[in-house]
Amino acid sequence: MIYLDNSATSRIDSEVLSVMTEVMQDIFANPSSLHGLGGKAERLVNAAREVLARQLEASTNEIYFTSGGTEANNLAIKGIAFAYQQRGSHLITTQIEHPSVYDVHKQLEEWGWKITYISANEKGKVDPADIERAITDETVLVSVMHVNNETGTIQPIQEIGQILQSYPKIFFHVDAVQSFGKLPVHPKQWKIDLLSLSGHKFHGPKGVGALYLRQGIQLSPLMVGGGQEQGIRSGTLNVPGIAGLAKAATLADQKRVEKTKKVLKWKLSFLEQIKANLDNVMINGDPTPNESSPYIINLSFPGLKSEVIVHSLETKNCYVSSKSACSSRLEKPSRVLLDMGLTPREALGSIRISMGLDTSESELVELAELLKTVIPSLQHIIKDQ
Amino acid sequence: MIYLDNSATSRIDSEVLSVMTEVMQDIFANPSSLHGLGGKAERLVNAAREVLARQLEASTNEIYFTSGGTEANNLAIKGIAFAYQQRGSHLITTQIEHPSVYDVHKQLEEWGWKITYISANEKGKVDPADIERAITDETVLVSVMHVNNETGTIQPIQEIGQILQSYPKIFFHVDAVQSFGKLPVHPKQWKIDLLSLSGHKFHGPKGVGALYLRQGIQLSPLMVGGGQEQGIRSGTLNVPGIAGLAKAATLADQKRVEKTKKVLKWKLSFLEQIKANLDNVMINGDPTPNESSPYIINLSFPGLKSEVIVHSLETKNCYVSSKSACSSRLEKPSRVLLDMGLTPREALGSIRISMGLDTSESELVELAELLKTVIPSLQHIIKDQ
Repeated sequence: MIYLDNSATSRIDSEVLSVMTEVMQDIFANPSSLHGLGGKAERLVNAAREVLARQLEASTNEIYFTSGGTEANNLAIKGIAFAYQQRGSHLITTQIEHPSVYDVHKQLEEWGWKITYISANEKGKVDPADIERAITDETVLVSVMHVNNETGTIQPIQEIGQILQSYPKIFFHVDAVQSFGKLPVHPKQWKIDLLSLSGHKFHGPKGVGALYLRQGIQLSPLMVGGGQEQGIRSGTLNVPGIAGLAKAATLADQKRVEKTKKVLKWKLSFLEQIKANLDNVMINGDPTPNESSPYIINLSFPGLKSEVIVHSLETKNCYVSSKSACSSRLEKPSRVLLDMGLTPREALGSIRISMGLDTSESELVELAELLKTVIPSLQHIIKDQ
Repeated sequence: MIYLDNSATSRIDSEVLSVMTEVMQDIFANPSSLHGLGGKAERLVNAAREVLARQLEASTNEIYFTSGGTEANNLAIKGIAFAYQQRGSHLITTQIEHPSVYDVHKQLEEWGWKITYISANEKGKVDPADIERAITDETVLVSVMHVNNETGTIQPIQEIGQILQSYPKIFFHVDAVQSFGKLPVHPKQWKIDLLSLSGHKFHGPKGVGALYLRQGIQLSPLMVGGGQEQGIRSGTLNVPGIAGLAKAATLADQKRVEKTKKVLKWKLSFLEQIKANLDNVMINGDPTPNESSPYIINLSFPGLKSEVIVHSLETKNCYVSSKSACSSRLEKPSRVLLDMGLTPREALGSIRISMGLDTSESELVELAELLKTVIPSLQHIIKDQ
């Protein structure tokens, strides 16, 4: 099997699985319980918190566990919007965010907040100057993703963080779901106030994620109750999931630098082959190294339908995706690609190929070979119609 | 080890663990993915949904997976409050709810909603007539728990549901976190519109729960994004957790009738012993069979401190709790017990003993023996002071 849909979700690492199984069997108590069994579970959670804090160069009291990236993004954005509504009701985000950021802004808009959605350029990158121009006296939050989940384009987070230093009343949220575990992420150095990550994107468990929240910032909780996570996120802590998340983060940290170099080489060579062997193909996003995540490739075959390509490859036991998994069931062109200036016809013929820390070179090589036969045969059918 | 803190959390069943391990290894794709691997994951989620739907005598499109009981409660209550704010802004709940219900109402109160909190009687039971008297033209939701998490008292859900039949504009939410998997739960028959449950309370995994939402009711989502769960709960589905939840529900359904009979017998015999052997002990809640969950026992030893009793038992390898795990770190008397009319001194000396589907008779027998020595020795120390 060739699995190249790692941006949707990744295979759990066998070491992560072992940790989780062990915790489920042996450390089952509620970390909020007063007795020693609870204390044991609590220490495990704290150790996991330290792992993430260390990787994010943060304090442990700046790490909050959530049920995943979607919750972390919702919590960050609504949390700031509600907590600081006296300060202002304007938020800035981009047209290319993941639905768990974009749709939160749409929801806030319905509730009376004012939102500015910044467009990306033709390479899928947002201009920090556009962000600055959108700032008003009412602005309380800027939310920009690190790595775009469809094109892989890396956004100028550090530059935006730098600009926002002149606006101390505006918070900066970064959705790092597609970067954490694969690329360097430095919230403090990049002047990020809130940062979201998700376990299952880097071979950790599903159902667990985290939010980095800089100390001293208020956040209105999405869920109240038992008062866990300093009152920011109530609910019995998912101890095995949290331990699994920390293990996955540790493993990713050990592997990612070397892996990223390899993956970049494979990606560049794959793109060369695609350009050499296929007609009427577009490489979406920014193929320049350092401007894009080496782990994501986005191609368009204008005239073809994403779904048809995905299913054709599937018959060869090769799995890629049409666009983001979350919206893959909707037969609409990608909002992200349209924003970059692609026509609907171009956007409807796009596929995303996404690698993980366990991807092998042969998978990409085989995919290139498959595309060499699959695409022309599909293009031939279209031409004949 | 004697583990009698099952209302805080329960040991995961080994069969549940096996299912989860298998799913994590073999069915790792994102159920939202367009390809066949995604489809396989989606079918697993649907099968789990069918299990819960069957047990709740509901349709599969009335079951929504969440990250746990706290999320299900927050989603139910805020979801109705926000979706129906044009209809009215008054909610009715009780003084004895779990914090994930009670604090949601406090949060809504801060945001401008009007809340009536109904008190329980001295046995910890709410009077349905009090609920009806609190209804106004503005009332949109009544939220009452099924089994109280501290005392085990069963609330008159069916009677409340019956009363609310005369008020078709008022929705009825039931927190069934402490009952589902242990006692019969019939949302349709009891005229419940929304019902919350949590996996780890009946030997399922932590980090997963569900909300039953009667068809045709609007709900404002807590988390938006990918549009999973009919748009009510976005976020990549926690496939292994969901499969584990369904397995735990299946096992609980097979065991609970027979187990409940046994547990009730053990509880009654335990209470007889306690009354016979200990001085100055109060049995909180309603010890009458059928009025209380057989799985929960709440005792007070006025003058003693809960924490001291819990820690004394812990040195004998026996684990019980002071009050609900969620608030156990706060050295305040239980809100639930105070509402029932206990003095702070009585409430501060309470312990909760909670059984699970894997509890054995010997555990309760040994606890009774332990208390026979531990309590008098602690009472002796107090008297000497």
